[in-house]
Amino acid sequence: MAHVKHQKWWGWGEEGVFFDYRNKPAFAPFVKEAIGVSLRPRQRDTVDFATVQVPASTASEDVLARLRGISGPENVSLDDELRIVHWAGKSVLELMQTLRSDFARVPDVVVYPGSEDEVAEILRTAVAQDLVVIPFGGGSSISRSLQPAPEETRCIVSLDMGRLNKVLEIDETSGLATIQAGVLGPDMEDQLNARGWTLGHFPDSFAYSTLGGWAATRSSGMQSDKYGDIADIVRGLRLVRPSGTVVLRPLPSTSTGPSLREMVIGSEGRLGVITELTVHVHRLPQEHEVIAYMFPTWQQALTAVRRYTEAEIPLTFARISDAHETAFSLATQKASTSVKGKLAAKGQDALWAVMRRRGWDTDAMCISYACFEGSAKDVAERKKAVARIAKAHGAVVLGSGPGALYDQKKFDTPHLRDFLLEQNTVGDVSETAAPWSKLTTVHKNAYDAVQRAYAQLGKSGWIMSHMSHSYHSGACLYFTFAYVFDEENPYEEYQVVKSAIQQSFIDSGATLSHHHGVGVEHQPWMEQDVSPEGVALMKGLFQVADPGGNLNPGKVVS
Amino acid sequence: MAHVKHQKWWGWGEEGVFFDYRNKPAFAPFVKEAIGVSLRPRQRDTVDFATVQVPASTASEDVLARLRGISGPENVSLDDELRIVHWAGKSVLELMQTLRSDFARVPDVVVYPGSEDEVAEILRTAVAQDLVVIPFGGGSSISRSLQPAPEETRCIVSLDMGRLNKVLEIDETSGLATIQAGVLGPDMEDQLNARGWTLGHFPDSFAYSTLGGWAATRSSGMQSDKYGDIADIVRGLRLVRPSGTVVLRPLPSTSTGPSLREMVIGSEGRLGVITELTVHVHRLPQEHEVIAYMFPTWQQALTAVRRYTEAEIPLTFARISDAHETAFSLATQKASTSVKGKLAAKGQDALWAVMRRRGWDTDAMCISYACFEGSAKDVAERKKAVARIAKAHGAVVLGSGPGALYDQKKFDTPHLRDFLLEQNTVGDVSETAAPWSKLTTVHKNAYDAVQRAYAQLGKSGWIMSHMSHSYHSGACLYFTFAYVFDEENPYEEYQVVKSAIQQSFIDSGATLSHHHGVGVEHQPWMEQDVSPEGVALMKGLFQVADPGGNLNPGKVVS
Repeated sequence: MAHVKHQKWWGWGEEGVFFDYRNKPAFAPFVKEAIGVSLRPRQRDTVDFATVQVPASTASEDVLARLRGISGPENVSLDDELRIVHWAGKSVLELMQTLRSDFARVPDVVVYPGSEDEVAEILRTAVAQDLVVIPFGGGSSISRSLQPAPEETRCIVSLDMGRLNKVLEIDETSGLATIQAGVLGPDMEDQLNARGWTLGHFPDSFAYSTLGGWAATRSSGMQSDKYGDIADIVRGLRLVRPSGTVVLRPLPSTSTGPSLREMVIGSEGRLGVITELTVHVHRLPQEHEVIAYMFPTWQQALTAVRRYTEAEIPLTFARISDAHETAFSLATQKASTSVKGKLAAKGQDALWAVMRRRGWDTDAMCISYACFEGSAKDVAERKKAVARIAKAHGAVVLGSGPGALYDQKKFDTPHLRDFLLEQNTVGDVSETAAPWSKLTTVHKNAYDAVQRAYAQLGKSGWIMSHMSHSYHSGACLYFTFAYVFDEENPYEEYQVVKSAIQQSFIDSGATLSHHHGVGVEHQPWMEQDVSPEGVALMKGLFQVADPGGNLNPGKVVS
Repeated sequence: MAHVKHQKWWGWGEEGVFFDYRNKPAFAPFVKEAIGVSLRPRQRDTVDFATVQVPASTASEDVLARLRGISGPENVSLDDELRIVHWAGKSVLELMQTLRSDFARVPDVVVYPGSEDEVAEILRTAVAQDLVVIPFGGGSSISRSLQPAPEETRCIVSLDMGRLNKVLEIDETSGLATIQAGVLGPDMEDQLNARGWTLGHFPDSFAYSTLGGWAATRSSGMQSDKYGDIADIVRGLRLVRPSGTVVLRPLPSTSTGPSLREMVIGSEGRLGVITELTVHVHRLPQEHEVIAYMFPTWQQALTAVRRYTEAEIPLTFARISDAHETAFSLATQKASTSVKGKLAAKGQDALWAVMRRRGWDTDAMCISYACFEGSAKDVAERKKAVARIAKAHGAVVLGSGPGALYDQKKFDTPHLRDFLLEQNTVGDVSETAAPWSKLTTVHKNAYDAVQRAYAQLGKSGWIMSHMSHSYHSGACLYFTFAYVFDEENPYEEYQVVKSAIQQSFIDSGATLSHHHGVGVEHQPWMEQDVSPEGVALMKGLFQVADPGGNLNPGKVVS
């Protein structure tokens, strides 16, 4: 299985890639002030797997023989490190559990099917032998969609889709590509880009997540304003079930009853295994430019972005960091080593002076980005239209320098969590979506809720937020929070903080998650989000689709 | 129930509104040539209900007493004419059956609930007393989504939602309106327009269909390119079920597992009754203009419209009539009585001359329309962008005169069917959607299939088509066909023709319906469209959601 790339067993991303603060002079003082932690340089380059206590596999020889018969012995593994790589996603809770060898149940065997037929045969075997099958893409879930139930007594098979990684066909007339589910983001984009196309789907997890995983967890990428959420992007799919394969042919739109496509999307393995998808692809844009704007306040920035939407200016994304995230963002800027960088820093000082002269409260100001794609003419016109609205709401246009910086850094954030964990600090995220009219309340209530939680736990903590993913009727708010955890009792206090934020979403009319799925992590809010009767209907669907509970049981609703 | 507007019991629309060909001089010769019928002037202003044989109601006194107790005696009707109004939709098959008193089973009682609570109590009663409940909006279905199963022995309740017809709230910040499900299109638009808003959803049935019906049958309006299909428009809803109410709060997007919203949309009453929806609304556009273009060929027109989509020009709609529909469209032009009209006719003659001089085959040319909305500047720019592409594909821009004419006539077509039925002629429609790469084949194959069917039946018939509803990856093709029917055997030969077209869709990679739902009419193609395993999954959902089969049983899949 050397050809299937895996993340670190103990953290985010590939071995050898880290967050580093030593070239970011403002970062350590910022963390000290925000949560009271004096940062130490990173010690942990890796973690020795020999320290890990892995529960023994319970896979019977009979089951192993069947699986080897299906996918070949070389694609069936009992290796302990692979079993730990596959035991969970990368939520903070899972990372903490992994580092503490705190495994209740781990997959007993990892299988790498090489074809849809093999997937089908594995699922039929799972039902016949009463096994549990958990499909595995890139392993980047942060909602515990991969972790087996602690009380599971049956043999657990992790079905790693990594060998199914090809772009099969591009229908250039229709802007549709048929792609295998197990392909990782960069590998897929390489195959598409080589022919002049892009999917345009770039979630934070892009480098370590798969097309099938995006569909199974109802993902959304940073550029969804242009390219759509995964539910918009996916037009056809194949879902292998023990009883047969659901084949949804690619259609621009259809009126064939309840949407099977939209049942499969977000189903997190509970209806079967997605093996192939036909998706919207777009020609690589001629131009791609990110412009930064500084707004005096969060409220002015929110109103401005809503106006972009009302004016129907075609943007690739629009994003606002709130005041806290703006401060954080400035603190993670790299020290300038180049002459150009030093000039830019001087320019920034001058800008600050301008803002202060204008009477801005620099603690309240919010940096915002908008991304433009298209012909040079389109980009120029849209930049003008956005600048006009932004300025009418008090903004200063910072230009493309900070925008380009944002574009470079965009996939770095998840690495920060591993670095902080080493310093006994939780850094984690909760995100939601709500109608425009509720966003101010959602934002305020999340801040209040987390502060109450910190107070309850007797600690000081941090929260910051950004707005991303604009729609006609609302947007996504994405919160990042951090606090020093108690080594004796890290899980319960994490739940106090995370739950406070999640509950504040629901109470403010927002959803439990805009693009991170449900898994186990967000289940407690399902009845409040989609109503008890909605949960009952969904449970009914899973029950009838998987009466033996062999397909990733316990996820989404249970 | 005088306050609930109903269609004619025997045809489309309101009593007193008809198709009239006598002011369209080219129409009768056109029909004579196309299908060999010598048109007679319309005789049928109405049909005397006294001629109708209505099966007696089987509703027991006990059931009636319960229903009267819930909604009040004045809202529970055994009236024969109302029972016939509610017995079916307006498919050609149903119209023929109705005119022949060919009723297998009709609703035993019609109830007009006045609140969601009443709907809930009626559904609980239905389960307890083993009744069948068929929700009824405007009665415009042409897929037999309303007709009871002929073999149904239980008491059938038609649940007319017409009293639930209010726009309850407009969230002006978010562009969201909360609206009761039973409101008819024009009534809803009046309420929204009065406050400066529009839903922008205009199906052919607009005047006689309801918001709840659009959602329940997965409808799409003529302006869906801008305003979206109903699945895009609906953001939240309330679905009353016997066991409780599914409440989906309005959210721009969410990641909460399989989409319950997309399960309810298209469910045609099988999961419960939709009582309330929160939907995208838009400010009334400053400008609204329809421009007509004449293309030398269908293929050039199709390519041009695909290019509009690729260029991401924001259009409200783009439509192409194929050569046959273009000829039909010219034949239904009214005779000019005004000086201006006569000048326009002269202009048209001149235009024809130009086209012939250019070497066009005037039998091949296709009229196309594009609709522009927005500020005067937006409209001007987009018109220019579209004209550039259209001309590059050989088009002549005809301007806004024919465009405005199209806009006026757009809801008239369904009336033609009643007029033709009186002349022993079936005029009916089948529509589909497919990726751009397949549209030419879909179009050709439907033509071939219907001609083979006509040949098999030994008759000559007509077919024409238009393209509407463009998407990134494809579009809708809408076919209209006509032939003289055999009075002895009208149903079977209808099935031969309709089935030939439907099967050609599936065989060409297109869907069984883009926006007319499934009902009973399109069920034979469900397994071929969404695969047998997909149908099995959908059946499972309905089975678990309605174990007693009380909720519009037999629709979509059975």
